This record gives sequence, C-alpha cells and structure tokens, in this order.
Amino acid sequence: MSFRVGVVGASGYSGAELLRLLAGHPALEVALATSQSHVGRSVGEVWPALAPYYPALPLTRFEPVGLCGLDLVFLALPHGESHCAIAAITEAVPRVVDLGSDFRLPADVYGAWNETPHAAPGYLAKFSYGLPELFRDDIAGHDLVANPGCYATAAILALAPLLQHGAIEPTGIVINGLSGLSGRGRGLSTESLFVEAAESVTPYGLLNHRHTPEIEQALGRVADGSVQVLFTPHLVPMKRGILVTCTAKAAKPGLSTESLLALYQSSYAGEPFVSVGCQPPSTAWTYGSNRAAITVRYDPRADSVLAIAAIDNLGKGAAGQAIQNANLMLGLAETSGLTHCELAA
Amino acid sequence: MSFRVGVVGASGYSGAELLRLLAGHPALEVALATSQSHVGRSVGEVWPALAPYYPALPLTRFEPVGLCGLDLVFLALPHGESHCAIAAITEAVPRVVDLGSDFRLPADVYGAWNETPHAAPGYLAKFSYGLPELFRDDIAGHDLVANPGCYATAAILALAPLLQHGAIEPTGIVINGLSGLSGRGRGLSTESLFVEAAESVTPYGLLNHRHTPEIEQALGRVADGSVQVLFTPHLVPMKRGILVTCTAKAAKPGLSTESLLALYQSSYAGEPFVSVGCQPPSTAWTYGSNRAAITVRYDPRADSVLAIAAIDNLGKGAAGQAIQNANLMLGLAETSGLTHCELAA
Amino acid sequence: MSFRVGVVGASGYSGAELLRLLAGHPALEVALATSQSHVGRSVGEVWPALAPYYPALPLTRFEPVGLCGLDLVFLALPHGESHCAIAAITEAVPRVVDLGSDFRLPADVYGAWNETPHAAPGYLAKFSYGLPELFRDDIAGHDLVANPGCYATAAILALAPLLQHGAIEPTGIVINGLSGLSGRGRGLSTESLFVEAAESVTPYGLLNHRHTPEIEQALGRVADGSVQVLFTPHLVPMKRGILVTCTAKAAKPGLSTESLLALYQSSYAGEPFVSVGCQPPSTAWTYGSNRAAITVRYDPRADSVLAIAAIDNLGKGAAGQAIQNANLMLGLAETSGLTHCELAA
Amino acid sequence: MSFRVGVVGASGYSGAELLRLLAGHPALEVALATSQSHVGRSVGEVWPALAPYYPALPLTRFEPVGLCGLDLVFLALPHGESHCAIAAITEAVPRVVDLGSDFRLPADVYGAWNETPHAAPGYLAKFSYGLPELFRDDIAGHDLVANPGCYATAAILALAPLLQHGAIEPTGIVINGLSGLSGRGRGLSTESLFVEAAESVTPYGLLNHRHTPEIEQALGRVADGSVQVLFTPHLVPMKRGILVTCTAKAAKPGLSTESLLALYQSSYAGEPFVSVGCQPPSTAWTYGSNRAAITVRYDPRADSVLAIAAIDNLGKGAAGQAIQNANLMLGLAETSGLTHCELAA
Repeated sequence: MSFRVGVVGASGYSGAELLRLLAGHPALEVALATSQSHVGRSVGEVWPALAPYYPALPLTRFEPVGLCGLDLVFLALPHGESHCAIAAITEAVPRVVDLGSDFRLPADVYGAWNETPHAAPGYLAKFSYGLPELFRDDIAGHDLVANPGCYATAAILALAPLLQHGAIEPTGIVINGLSGLSGRGRGLSTESLFVEAAESVTPYGLLNHRHTPEIEQALGRVADGSVQVLFTPHLVPMKRGILVTCTAKAAKPGLSTESLLALYQSSYAGEPFVSVGCQPPSTAWTYGSNRAAITVRYDPRADSVLAIAAIDNLGKGAAGQAIQNANLMLGLAETSGLTHCELAA
Repeated sequence: MSFRVGVVGASGYSGAELLRLLAGHPALEVALATSQSHVGRSVGEVWPALAPYYPALPLTRFEPVGLCGLDLVFLALPHGESHCAIAAITEAVPRVVDLGSDFRLPADVYGAWNETPHAAPGYLAKFSYGLPELFRDDIAGHDLVANPGCYATAAILALAPLLQHGAIEPTGIVINGLSGLSGRGRGLSTESLFVEAAESVTPYGLLNHRHTPEIEQALGRVADGSVQVLFTPHLVPMKRGILVTCTAKAAKPGLSTESLLALYQSSYAGEPFVSVGCQPPSTAWTYGSNRAAITVRYDPRADSVLAIAAIDNLGKGAAGQAIQNANLMLGLAETSGLTHCELAA
Repeated sequence: MSFRVGVVGASGYSGAELLRLLAGHPALEVALATSQSHVGRSVGEVWPALAPYYPALPLTRFEPVGLCGLDLVFLALPHGESHCAIAAITEAVPRVVDLGSDFRLPADVYGAWNETPHAAPGYLAKFSYGLPELFRDDIAGHDLVANPGCYATAAILALAPLLQHGAIEPTGIVINGLSGLSGRGRGLSTESLFVEAAESVTPYGLLNHRHTPEIEQALGRVADGSVQVLFTPHLVPMKRGILVTCTAKAAKPGLSTESLLALYQSSYAGEPFVSVGCQPPSTAWTYGSNRAAITVRYDPRADSVLAIAAIDNLGKGAAGQAIQNANLMLGLAETSGLTHCELAA
Repeated sequence: MSFRVGVVGASGYSGAELLRLLAGHPALEVALATSQSHVGRSVGEVWPALAPYYPALPLTRFEPVGLCGLDLVFLALPHGESHCAIAAITEAVPRVVDLGSDFRLPADVYGAWNETPHAAPGYLAKFSYGLPELFRDDIAGHDLVANPGCYATAAILALAPLLQHGAIEPTGIVINGLSGLSGRGRGLSTESLFVEAAESVTPYGLLNHRHTPEIEQALGRVADGSVQVLFTPHLVPMKRGILVTCTAKAAKPGLSTESLLALYQSSYAGEPFVSVGCQPPSTAWTYGSNRAAITVRYDPRADSVLAIAAIDNLGKGAAGQAIQNANLMLGLAETSGLTHCELAA
C-alpha cells in the first residue's frame, strides 16, 4: 500500500531533506515537487545528490489545484505563505503537514508575534501541533498538522518531563539556542554567506523570536498552566544542528541529577527517536537523523535544573518530524522511512 | 540468508562508516567489532550516533583467532598492520576485505614506496584489487580483496576511460588531489587539530604518496602498458570528501568535450555508483554515499584532457566500496546495503 | 625605553598570540621563548607565520633560573603548572603575568573547584586580578598579575555594570558561553580533532567549570556582596572567539533597553577596548583584537535583563589582555602594542 | 608627509581589507570610501571590526568627480566596471590602483576572454602590471597600475624563477588553484552560502578562467617568449587563502630539488614579502598578510618540476599588493603599512 505525496518548496533545505528521506520511504511516493525559484529544472539539477533517486521528477510551479490526487502534501514554504493559500490547499488535498510557522499559534498570539494578522484564523483550530512524543494521539486523529519549529522541538522535548512533574518553576526559564546555518533557509542574504558566517557566532532575534510563544504554548499544555521562557537564539558556523541549553529554578526539594535522569528515562521510555543519557550531547550525534539526544542535571549550588537537547534542525526539527507526523496521520508505522543509520563521523 | 561479518578497527573513521552502512545491510550482520584504543567500551559509547543500532555490541581487542566463525572480515587497520597478521587472519576467516594499503602492490613496488619491506609477499598474488567498475569479475572470484585507496579510487575512475581508449598519453599525467580531514584518520596529531586545519589548505606527501604506484598499476592494467603520474595531495578543511583533478596530453586527433563526455557515459553505462555529467562535480554531491561523480573536458588550447572526479573518501573511497566488494565476494546484489539516499545539503 | 620580556609556553595558542602581538609592540622585546614540546626548534619552525618576525629566536626549555635578566615574564602554561614553580620564578624575574588559572582564586575556593590543593597559597594575596576595566589601579601597583580566564573576562564585562548599579538580582544569573576550539589549547585529544569538532556543538564542564567561581568572585567585588551564577560552556566549530549570553532577574523597577544601553555607555566611556552597541555582537567583530563588544536588553515579559559580550579568547581573553596588564605594570600606555586593526572579514 | 587616498568599493571584501590595512598606514589617509549597496551607512556599521578606526567615515555613492583632491584612488569594483569610467576617473585623480581585471590585458586578449569588448582600449598601455617582485621599476614610474589577480599573483610568483632560467618547458604547464570563498566576492549567490560551500570543494571556470591569459602574459614577459598554461580553479571551504600547485616538464638536465630551492632563494633574495622554504606551505601561514610562501620540487620519475605558492587572496592577492603598489607609486617605503604580524593560529 503506497500513498502519493507532494513536497511544496522542494528547492529549500527542508524540501531537499524531505525528498531525501522520502526516497527511502517504503510507503510514500513523491508524486509532485514544486519550487518558486527553479521551475522547469529537475530535482537532480537542483540537488545533484538526489539525482539518482529522482531521475525524472521536475520542479513545477506551486498551485493548489495541482495538489489534486495526492494523499498528503508537505508544505515547506517560507513563513507566512501557507496561511494565505490554506483554503485552496485543503480543497485539493485531504492531508497537510505544514512545516512553516503559520498554524502553530492561536490568532491573537500569532498577531502579537508577527507583523501581520493571521489570514485564515478559522483554520487554526483544525491543525494539530505535531510533536508526536507529547501529542501522538491528537496527531493521529487529524488531517492537518502543524510541524513544530526546530528550536521549539528541541526546547519542548528538553523541558517537558520537568514541567509534567512539577520539578521546575514554570516562569523564569532561560533557553539558549544554537543553530546551524540551514536554519536560516536558502534565501540569499549577506548574513548567510560563508565568509560572514564562518569563524563566528552571532546572537539574533533577541526577545522576539517567534518560537518563544510556541514553546510556551506547548509546555503550557504539558504543565497544565502558564509557562514563561526567555529564549535567545544564536547562529553557529555549521550546516546542520540545533542545541538548546535550558535552565530553570527547581520547584521541589530533593532533586538530584540521578533522579532527574531516571525521570527522563521513564518519560521517554519506548520513544524511538529520543535518547536520554548522562553525557552532554553533541549535535553531531543527531546529524541527518530524526533523533533527539537529551541530558539533564540538578545544580545544588543554584537549586536549579539544567536540561540540554540536541537535534538536527532539518531532521527532527523539520523533515524527519514531518514524516513521523505523516506516518501517524496515514496509519503507518511511526518509524517508517526514518530508520536509516546516519553519519557517525 | 545472512552472513556474519567482523569490523577490525571499529573506532576509526572507516570502521565507523562500515558499522553505519552495515546497520542497514539486509544480508550482513556485524558479529564482531574490535578496537585497539577503546577495548571494553561499547560501539555506542565511542560512536553515539550508532548507539541505537548497536545497543549491545562491545569493542573487543583484535586477535586473529577471534575471527573464527565469521564469514568475512573487514580490516580497517592503520597502514602496515594487516600484512603482519594476514596468515593468522586467513586461517580464522574465509574472506577478507582489507581497507589498508598492504595488499595492493607487488612486493618490489611496495618496498620501494614504503620504509619497510613487505612481511607477507606470498599473499600478494592471492589478493584481488577491489575496484568493481574495472575488475568486477576478478573480485567475484576471490576470497581476499584489497580495497583501493581513496585518492586512487577517484583518480583511476577519472582516468580509466581515457587510457582504455588511447585518448591520452600514458605519461606526464598530472593528478591533484584534495581530501577532507578524515582521510588522515583518527590518530592524534597536531596537523589534525581543528585549529590547525580550519581556514587553511596544505599540500603534503610531495612526490612520494603511496597512492602514486597504486594509481599507475591499476591504470597500467587498463591501458595495457606502463602509465606514469605525478600526484600531489592536499588537505582541505572539511570532514569528508575527495576531489581529483587530472590533466593529460591528448593522444588522438579530433577530441572534443562532447565526444569525451559520450565516451565516459558509455564506459560507465549501467554502473550504479558512477555518475557522469557536464557540470563540474562538488564533493558534497557524494557526501556519505558510495557514488563517484565525474566530468571531463578537452582543452584545444593545450591539446589536453581534464578529468575530474569527486567521491566521499569514507564511502566509495573506503567503507562503501568495501561493502560493494563484500557483496560481490558473497554473491549478493552489488548494491546491497548501499542504496540509501544521503544528505543533499 | 624598551623592556625585555619572556614568553613561557610559546608553542601553545596563547603563546603564539603573545609572540604575534609582541612583534609589533614598541616597548617590549621578546628575549626568551620556551616550550616543553618543541625544545630546539625555532619560533619560525613551529609558527611559520611568525618566522619573518623572529628570524633567530629559539624555543628553549623552561627553567625559572633562565628568566633572570628579564623585566617581565608571561606564563602561558597548562593549568596547574604555574603555582608549583612560582617561588623560583619570582626570585628570577621581577614581574609576572600568569595567563593560567593558578592565581585567580583564594586557596579554599581553588581547592573546592580543583582536584588538588593549591601548592603556593602564600602567593595568592600577592597577585592582582588583571581585568583593567574594573581593577586598573590595583593592577598598576602590582608586580604579579593573574590574567583572567577567557569566559570570565567576557562574562564579567557583560554583567559588571548591572551589578554595580543594582539593576539585577545577584543570584540566579544564567551564563551560557560559546568558545572556539583554541580555547581547548593545543594539546592532543580526540575532541579537538577537526573531524570531531567541525559541524557540531558540544556542551561541556556542566556545573563544574572553574571559571564559575572566578566570575562570582570578580562580580562579587563589583556588587560588594555575594554573587551566584550558573555557567554552561559549549564548544563551537571555529578557531577563535568567545560569546557569553547572560540572563538575570531585574532588581529595579523602570528598566528599559534604552536606559541599560545608556548605563553601559557611561560605565565603559573612555575604555579603549570595550564597545557598547545596540546590535547583537558577533565574535567576528573582535577576531584577533583586544576588544570586547557588548549589548544589553531589558525583557519586560520576564522582567529580566539579557547581556551579551563577544571577545577573541586569544585576544582580550588571553594574550591581548596580558599585554594590556603588562603595559599597566610597566607604566606604559595601556594600549601600547594593541592598536593594530584586525581582520574585518 | 601624508597622502589622501580613496577606496572605491569599500563594502566588498577587498575594500574592507584595504580599509583595515590603511588604518595602520603611516603615510596614507583614507579621505573617501564609496559603496553602491550601502550608501548612507558608515564604515563602522558595515564593518563593525573597523568601527573604532573610522568613527565617522561615511560610505558615499561613487562618482568620478568625487575623487577630486585625492592623491590616489584604489578601485575595488566588480569586474568590468572600471574600464567604463576610467576616463572620468583619471581626470579627477592623478593616481589609480585598479584591483579589478579591466586593465591587465591587451584589448584583443581581453576581448577573447570576456563577453564584451574593452570599452577604453586607449588606456591599456598607460597601465603598468602591478607585480612588484617582477616589475618593480615599471610600477614606480607609472600613475596607473593594474593590480594582479589573486590566482595570477600566486601562479606567477611560483613559476617565474623557473621560466626566467629556462628550467621548465614554457608549454604544458598545469596549474591547479584553490581559493577561499572571499575570492568569489560579497555578491549574493547560492554558491556562496555557508550551507552550500561548507564541507565541499568545487572546481569551476574550467578552461576559461580569465586569470589564464593574465598568467600567460606575465610569465611570457619573464620567459621572453610564449607561455601556455592549463589553469583549473577550485573553491575550498575557508574564508581566505589561495594555493596554487604548478607542474611543468623540466627543460634542462641536472635539476634537483636542492638546486631549485637555491634558485628560488636567490631569485627572491631581499624580497620582503616572499618566503621560500622546503616545507610545503599552508595558506594559514599567510593569513591576513602580504606574504607569499613558496616551495619547489624536482621529480626525477616524471622529469618534472612541482612549484607551490600560498598567499592570502585578500592580502598579496588584492589589498596588500595594492598598497605595496601605491607605496611604490608615491615614493614611500615599499613595506609601509604592511609590516604588522598577522595571526599565527
């Protein structure tokens, strides 16, 4: 049994990663790939590494009506483009995984963190937030899924067990995020040039990065109450990878690193894509994969908890998780197409 | 039907790549992994990215007798260690793929390009040179295979069609090679430190790199005559990847870039792991894969031919090709375990 | 008027940076350079970029008696080596700038954060903590100066104005540090290899990095009270550069980003090596220089302050600051030898 | 005595390097800096590392009449822009150093290697080719100097002693060039993005790079005859640095590596910016400097000579050499402003 899927935005980095993973997926077949900037070229011309796997697939211009006949579409569009076209898209195709940030927040919160108001607020309630480790059942029952942001995925997975069990205060949480350059996308900008980005780290989006309310909302569901974080992202000179380092005040007596590690082990027991360990994780451990690697510490000096998660921003932070969600939506094995062993060095 | 294989030298970069690829191989099962430096630790401790795929495999000390019961062993040892132990190894295990440089040259040539004479010259004739695109039949009939060097693989594939068809002079061939740092191995040296290697390129091994006679020998078989090259390798600041740029005097009138591209297309027609194209290949096209990407040009100004090949030094240049050889030796599909689509960005 | 100085540990990265900067210093002359690992080789052999500036300077074995006749010595030794030899050193040479961490903390604190007790506690009170922007007068009057740690320099400069003016709570301060690989030194270790460090970020020293008490002590002097921080360092794939991102609870009503920027501008007015600006600083802005680039924000959502500083770990974080200290100790202009314009791209 | 100079194209990488070096030049004062893309911003906003050195210098729009009153102008414009404006420029300012490729070739050769014919052929004979080590006297007597290309500088310095002394055949010379990304300039293109360039090497400009005729012309002057080269450039993932590896047939009996090294030592004796040595040079040796580091080998197997040169493409390959030329044109010491010791690690 095979499903026909489309990749909208196939000339971007997340689009390429979707195509790569889908090339090995046993039950999903790529029937359509679109691009704004490379219409008329083939997948193999734009992504030579993919040429042997898509010998004839052309990049076509995206039009919602062109999605007719697909079972599911992955939208890997620039921020703000999905919500303008969602009505037409959902008329054409029964299932959508949106990798953008358009359908992750309620309309009022969206409006407060973006320059323009949401164009399709009526659709927001129809989208499920696609973080399977926390909201698996909800995703399986939805046809529209908003794939989480890359930083948000890492931060939520790093902090969820603590908030679920009341181990930390829900406010005053500090999250520092580090991202490789593919997190900026493939658009042309001076900041993304090799010469500007290499041999440097740069903080950005101070106090106003839109993953902030996304993290707060998802953790609020977990904590069953309001959560407040101060999130600071930084660009670091690598292609892929996200690391978040989270600090929060302890909210319970008697915590220890041992007990916290045990808590995480049990919280994520059986999860195929989460590894909990004592050693601080490197992003290289997750390069190309759909895995999150997490550790946690209790600091008795500051009576605080330190939680750290590493993912690949294009894997668990984008394309990998999108396929995980699609698997759930289509009733496939959740790990389908995501089991290949990725680069160790 | 499954074969039991061993990886000797599993804590090095080629060893890790073997383990990675074997984790997805449908017919080979890793029954043994050895390491000199990490005995007693598990594969997952030394290579966290591999931990989910080898939850319990320990790294043991290499002893030939420990290979008993395996169907095939991959030797990923430092240069010069295989030939000292080959007698004991071949007593214990019926098939060997040696990724080192010990069994690629006749004893006299080996002696001329190495500091010490060969310790097991009687075994040299028993080894087949494992470049399947040129010597496939020979490999399939052998139990002992010498896996080609990384630079040698790229250079031989780049130049073979020209020499097979007498299109270039067999002497005066200039080969410039560029390699990522994993080509130096995982041994500790100041030159391999990030701070020394980043933001720099360094030529090395001037006039005396041991891949020189290996290239000449393999191309000599192809040309059915003596071949002479001047090979200069360089380290470039990347983890993986080899690019060779080869220049030779034309030996025929009437050459053109079009005719040469057609020659390469036909020479490599049907080869699953060689891509010929007009665009100059980047090493990134082959990152993590077993593929070689090749282009060729005729320069009428200099009446010369320019041939360029890109591979992953750990893939087609080491572990990928080793598995390709093992597949041939064991009668499996040649592409078995090597079909996954690797990173496009 | 010229002073004769020595560089002990000249084959390490801080030693090389000292030699580089001293080559252009108008009043300091390098009369001695020592190395444990490269005795008998010349500076130019070990550091080819320095060869034209030190055509004949040999690297000699370090012996305290060999320092006789120098006016000042820079000690760029591995952690823990200075305190064992300090008595003999101070007998031989009248002035010492120690770039290591041996003389920055009181004996009890040193003992609590290191594996072995301090070997020369009697000398600790004789050392001044060499952060000129905060303790300039104290440094000028001392002959023994402990050069601050790289992370500590950045963190203290980032937070000092806030604590001086009671703008933040002195506890619960979260500091995330990012460092290039030269911060690990030139010693051989697998973690420092290009292949391991490139394309990855790695947190380390969780909860126990020895710059923690150093930061707390210096900020405590500034705050005139106890200060507590939770510091988490990370390695990022670049050669040079440190960035610290500091978060703390506001301790005053009425803060704003504008008022905080004005506070920093006035706190560092006239400082030749501190730049305060609104734009988040990149480490590239300080590459090769003795400069710190700082910004600050007030977050009304979390009622918290965010302060960020970038330096070059080998410049203001080591060799540059050491020369700044030496200038103060010798009565030279503080900027002497530190005014060259460094790489912009 | 101070001269007023202008930098046209100050927001590009060569422009930034000119500003950096001029900030420390004792006799040249930057009176004007222009930019097409950043008009109205200050130097410090566009290049934060330069802010302390140019606290008030604005970037203005380039107009030839605006150059009036300057003693000399550096043109760091994109290829093809200088020749269209040269008449107006030379009316406004008495001396020009053009870092572009517009005035390096005779009109017919220019036309053959470029898409459009030369717009100001009458000016070509008025320009001197600014490679001081070979054509010093000619430069000193000219007011218009064409600064050599980066690859060309390295290749010509690497090969000149051989051709001057008839040691190699003047045809069949193979030159492989490796360049860091700043060689592509600061213009926006997908190929220059960090994600595309990191972890990859890419050959480009096969058979038709415009430095080819430039190298042939300069070496032809040296050889006093026609010279023919086959030049293949490659991009490597670093910010700065050029390495050329040159191979040529020996034209004399009795050559040896020792005799060739001696030849180079004597050819470049007294040259302040050329270092000849036995060890293969890394580009890191020249990072930020105006130096060329060269080695040479005789290969008796192939009866060929191998010559290798490393430079910084923005230093000796652009801005450094431009200042060296300006010094000659203005009667200043040739090393003026170029003596600072650059990064060793």
